[in-house]
Amino acid sequence: MSQWPNRRLLDLLHIDIPIIQAPMAGSDSVALARAVSSVGALGSLGCALLTPEKVRESAHALRDGARPFNLNFFCHTLSTPGAAAIEKWKDILRPHYERWSLDIDAVPEARLRMPFDEAICSAVEEIAPPIVSFHFGLPDAPLVDRLKKRGIKILSSATSVREAKYLESRGCDAIIAQGVEAGGHRGMFMESTIATQTGLFALLPQVADAVSVPVIAAGGIADARGVAAAFLLGASAVQIGTAYLRCPEANTSPLYRAALAQAADNSTALTNMFSGRPARAIMNRYLEESGPMSDAAPPFPHAATLIAPLRSASEKSGSPDYMQLWSGQAAALAKSMPAADFTRELAAEALRLWSERPRA
Amino acid sequence: MSQWPNRRLLDLLHIDIPIIQAPMAGSDSVALARAVSSVGALGSLGCALLTPEKVRESAHALRDGARPFNLNFFCHTLSTPGAAAIEKWKDILRPHYERWSLDIDAVPEARLRMPFDEAICSAVEEIAPPIVSFHFGLPDAPLVDRLKKRGIKILSSATSVREAKYLESRGCDAIIAQGVEAGGHRGMFMESTIATQTGLFALLPQVADAVSVPVIAAGGIADARGVAAAFLLGASAVQIGTAYLRCPEANTSPLYRAALAQAADNSTALTNMFSGRPARAIMNRYLEESGPMSDAAPPFPHAATLIAPLRSASEKSGSPDYMQLWSGQAAALAKSMPAADFTRELAAEALRLWSERPRA
Repeated sequence: MSQWPNRRLLDLLHIDIPIIQAPMAGSDSVALARAVSSVGALGSLGCALLTPEKVRESAHALRDGARPFNLNFFCHTLSTPGAAAIEKWKDILRPHYERWSLDIDAVPEARLRMPFDEAICSAVEEIAPPIVSFHFGLPDAPLVDRLKKRGIKILSSATSVREAKYLESRGCDAIIAQGVEAGGHRGMFMESTIATQTGLFALLPQVADAVSVPVIAAGGIADARGVAAAFLLGASAVQIGTAYLRCPEANTSPLYRAALAQAADNSTALTNMFSGRPARAIMNRYLEESGPMSDAAPPFPHAATLIAPLRSASEKSGSPDYMQLWSGQAAALAKSMPAADFTRELAAEALRLWSERPRA
Repeated sequence: MSQWPNRRLLDLLHIDIPIIQAPMAGSDSVALARAVSSVGALGSLGCALLTPEKVRESAHALRDGARPFNLNFFCHTLSTPGAAAIEKWKDILRPHYERWSLDIDAVPEARLRMPFDEAICSAVEEIAPPIVSFHFGLPDAPLVDRLKKRGIKILSSATSVREAKYLESRGCDAIIAQGVEAGGHRGMFMESTIATQTGLFALLPQVADAVSVPVIAAGGIADARGVAAAFLLGASAVQIGTAYLRCPEANTSPLYRAALAQAADNSTALTNMFSGRPARAIMNRYLEESGPMSDAAPPFPHAATLIAPLRSASEKSGSPDYMQLWSGQAAALAKSMPAADFTRELAAEALRLWSERPRA
């Protein structure tokens, strides 16, 4: 396993296989991250939906594996939507609530995706995970500094060259170039429109040219061909999400698994109709009828509160019509197999692909 | 030059370098195509704006180079927009016309992009170019059959797996997998929304898995890294457009060249505001203010007629604000150099990149 053409991220993070299992808050698991880390790649846990106490507990279980792991946090700015914005959102959702015989005026408060703050920073300082990755930019400089002082390596996602340069200037140790193919939330924090978001094939070499820290390729990678190609385009590692959702260790429901197994290349779209921020999901009845992008969605993460009952009712009835089916554009390339085996096979096969290349 | 890892397209088209200069109607030239073909790659000429007579004349000049070349045609269905649709379109454009002091009710008929029809088919049978490529699907079966009977190899673009399968079933000899990164018109003909269009990184391996004919990668490839990576993802060749626009042989105006030289990764968007069909262009004032996508644009190619005076006035005044600046997402990776040198360097460098890969 020593023939990776670029060892920059391996050396930085003290891992053996340059594959990062993407954090996927709500769908990943401690078991998944441990399985991936156990073979020498990097397991991640998305913590945006966890309390500091739950983060501590999960990290304890991850540390027990004695291999590097990654905790991921969101760092959006929380803003509370006004009553008018909520009413506008309710107008959009009311017909959907009626379809499920749900009362839109009786929705309980849900736990929101929380940004990385003082309290969680203290917990993370105490835990001192080897690696922390952020989505939607970076927290305020003093918080980042506290993590760096504990020796924690910091990663974050860029969806453009200017975001990558900003992250490097703010001290990121490596940058995830997130192509538009990626499932789940776009990491965009300086970019404001999805119209100019870039495919990985174009984004990756441009980011690699623009920064001097190692670059991790993300978006549309689900098999060994993608791993091998990413290195040629300038990556020092890859981050894979969707393919890991089909591993038995992932916290993926049966209906979600079925949707992923059937997804074609053209099954997904970027939508803000689940959370308020653009994220790639498998198209379903809800997205066909109402979106996939709408100005009526209140700011992230508040849109999620009124969607939760629809998602829940849909799943309970055995229908994917209103489920939040995050997926990248390469779900069809993924296999359903244990995470450790999948990771090992991916690495071995990528190395084999290179060995078949001609010599000049 | 014999070490390409996959010789399928080289053998099919009798070329030595698996690089196709993309047809770019209006911006390519006989000189560009000849230069590319002269070094053993494949030069193309976009013929959608040419009369049969002009196609004959151009083909004569191309054949003189004694190397394989490609003629490209559009195969859309011409539909005439109603008066109401044109009025709606005029309402959108009127403020822009006022800005340039132009009279929207005094616009002359322009030559439209014409679909491949009986008359042009007769001319092409007579010319018998080695290769013909189509955009927006394929012409009716009898026309395709006539070309195939003349020994002409047929290529067309797919933006999804189902389009690729359709093209194969209709007898295409090779399929261009057009990633969403690509500049100019999306080749989509079964897909109806840009929301589900796929990045090359995800599209290419899925198309390669789905068809048995050779696959040509297009979209976001502008340097040797892209060429090398495309082969790992399943391509037998690449098609490059934007990078060739900066060659001296291309019919690219000085303002267009300047815009390409300054374009960043996030400078382009898909827009239907120039022709009525989605195409990737560098964002400018016109697109910022009015689009980039609008339901008010009349069907392709009719939108172009009322845009022509705006484009012309803009360019004459030295402003890119209303110019049609087709570009892919990797313009920043391109260099300005003669087409033959560029093609040779690209091929040599791609082969060198492979030679640096590790052996297992």
